[in-house]
Amino acid sequence: MTNGNRTDGATGTALQLRTTVTKDGTIELSLAEVPIPQPEADEVVVRVEAAPINPSDLGLLFGPADMSTARASGTAERPVITADIPQNLMRIVAGRVGESMPAGNEGAGVVVKAGSSPEAQSLVGKTVGIIGGGMYAQYRALKAKQCLVLPEGTTAVEGAACFVNPLTALGFVETMRLEGHTALVHTAAASNLGQMLQKICLADGVELVNVVRKPEQEELLRGIGATHVCNSSSNSFMEDLIQALVDTGATLAFDAIGGGTLGSKILTAMEAAATATAKEYSRYGSTTFKQLYIYGGLDRGPTELNRGFGFSWSIGGWLLTPFLQKIGFEAAQKLRERVAAEVKTTFASAYAKEISLAEALQLDAIAVYSKQATGEKYLIRPNQGL
Amino acid sequence: MTNGNRTDGATGTALQLRTTVTKDGTIELSLAEVPIPQPEADEVVVRVEAAPINPSDLGLLFGPADMSTARASGTAERPVITADIPQNLMRIVAGRVGESMPAGNEGAGVVVKAGSSPEAQSLVGKTVGIIGGGMYAQYRALKAKQCLVLPEGTTAVEGAACFVNPLTALGFVETMRLEGHTALVHTAAASNLGQMLQKICLADGVELVNVVRKPEQEELLRGIGATHVCNSSSNSFMEDLIQALVDTGATLAFDAIGGGTLGSKILTAMEAAATATAKEYSRYGSTTFKQLYIYGGLDRGPTELNRGFGFSWSIGGWLLTPFLQKIGFEAAQKLRERVAAEVKTTFASAYAKEISLAEALQLDAIAVYSKQATGEKYLIRPNQGL
Repeated sequence: MTNGNRTDGATGTALQLRTTVTKDGTIELSLAEVPIPQPEADEVVVRVEAAPINPSDLGLLFGPADMSTARASGTAERPVITADIPQNLMRIVAGRVGESMPAGNEGAGVVVKAGSSPEAQSLVGKTVGIIGGGMYAQYRALKAKQCLVLPEGTTAVEGAACFVNPLTALGFVETMRLEGHTALVHTAAASNLGQMLQKICLADGVELVNVVRKPEQEELLRGIGATHVCNSSSNSFMEDLIQALVDTGATLAFDAIGGGTLGSKILTAMEAAATATAKEYSRYGSTTFKQLYIYGGLDRGPTELNRGFGFSWSIGGWLLTPFLQKIGFEAAQKLRERVAAEVKTTFASAYAKEISLAEALQLDAIAVYSKQATGEKYLIRPNQGL
Repeated sequence: MTNGNRTDGATGTALQLRTTVTKDGTIELSLAEVPIPQPEADEVVVRVEAAPINPSDLGLLFGPADMSTARASGTAERPVITADIPQNLMRIVAGRVGESMPAGNEGAGVVVKAGSSPEAQSLVGKTVGIIGGGMYAQYRALKAKQCLVLPEGTTAVEGAACFVNPLTALGFVETMRLEGHTALVHTAAASNLGQMLQKICLADGVELVNVVRKPEQEELLRGIGATHVCNSSSNSFMEDLIQALVDTGATLAFDAIGGGTLGSKILTAMEAAATATAKEYSRYGSTTFKQLYIYGGLDRGPTELNRGFGFSWSIGGWLLTPFLQKIGFEAAQKLRERVAAEVKTTFASAYAKEISLAEALQLDAIAVYSKQATGEKYLIRPNQGL
């Protein structure tokens, strides 16, 4: 279960996943052997037991590489993956060329060593949720105050994804309130995040229109209490969606897909719902303000807008970190506390597979988890399987 | 010069252009003979001498009809134009089916009759700029306070376009200030509106990046003092644009085109300009907020976004009327006064042709003015050529 090169809380070396964009236009992933970090006074060292591969991790892991060109080298224990980056996309990653970067936004583990501060010392032996990058590693040092202590009886696997998805789902509902909307639309809605959002909306009495692609995803969401589920593969999708928008009055959507026409369809359906109840014709469309936020890029192709939704609309990017900065530490802390309290219920995640760091750099594993398909989420266990 | 059916300020009938969406999926344009309006106490009746055909008029005139199907009937004096609306676009105009609607956002003319109020009486004989729809008509009654009295010596032709383009151009600069940007990008920049915007920016010391499609448009803008002009047909367009954005720091763009990839290119160039000066690589792109407003649809095709510009961006619709409502009457009045004072200089418009109401319903004229090409703007003279 442990790596021969180190012992808990001691010195030695440990593994860390690295990703590098080379100047000749490839991305290279490998495992680096790095010294086990030693804590500063206000820091702790966490033995990372579990770290999910979220869609938000893939941008750093693979950049804009064409993963159909990915090839393996190295050994089973020290695999190396190389993939080509299309020339016209190198501009996007110009800032990271030649830099070997750790990856993994969040995870959970056990505090095995602590600095001298009382806050740090109080965490020794505790299982904590952690965020801040570099979690695809056996050990991670970070500020004691960055750790979210998980409730007694919570495992690291259960707490591995207690930041990104939970805070994003809570952030959607907070954004709705802050920006004066009263109901929500969410795409890729059967994801772990989508299920959390449905549970939050049920608890908070917020109406949610779920958009999915498959009948089994419809069933899954109805099984956890969803009222409005629209299947974008259905022939009646637009009518179903318009009806759900008339029923709920949702004028705010969060879209994980990004590419294609789905976002445009949602705005068009919102406009149709608004004009269905409007009293007077306006050549510029309804005066109902419609907001679409793109928070992911499951489809990396271009976004296509038909603009058949008047002039009162906005589309923007939505990211968790700027949102948390905007609401401020205290408001964000309240959200974090809610996550800790409901980590086994509202914010429970499910994984298709647990893999080691070396397994994360196998072509067959990458082929699955890089697709970001709903129900195919992988969990890295950095201190297992080596 | 005058229509036989009426005399100035008197009773009788006069012509008014009408547009109707029929329930069998066509749009029909014709000239209706309507009673010359009589003013209420606080109203005046204006003999409309000139009314421009702005891009913002075309939505009401032709709706979403496919104008390649347009056919003529009626007589030379009472022409009728009919065009088909694609079935899937009928939803957009469901609210106006069967309603014969007047058109023409703005114009100018002479007050020939006034109600009893002192304000109305004071306008008799004055040349005024007017806005509010229904200007493609020989006479228009409206509230005295809606009239903008043009400075002595200003003709109706000179004052015909003193609302839509001037207030839109001023609105762009005001929006820039209100939303915390410091420089602007504008597309279709050699238009009447674009030239006004360049003059305003020169007067106000605001840096403006003009995007045009043709070398002669570049020259035209440089001729009125433009510093930054980028030609989207040039091979070096993206480099030129990025350099202009580095030079100006513009993070706000107003786009008249709508369809295609130009808006996406502008956001991508803004992102490149932001990262060119950034100190640290961020996998999510720069933290520089980039705003694109689409205020027109010269290209009615879909908007295509490559999303290669991080997550800190927004795209929205921009319309004059909601903007004026947002800033309030007093602020809007200041803008109107500036327009009146500079109507022969900053806000001068040029027209390719003057046409009568009947000529506005000729297929060859429609083929030109419905294209909204820069330098092909038409002016309707409702009381001439009949």
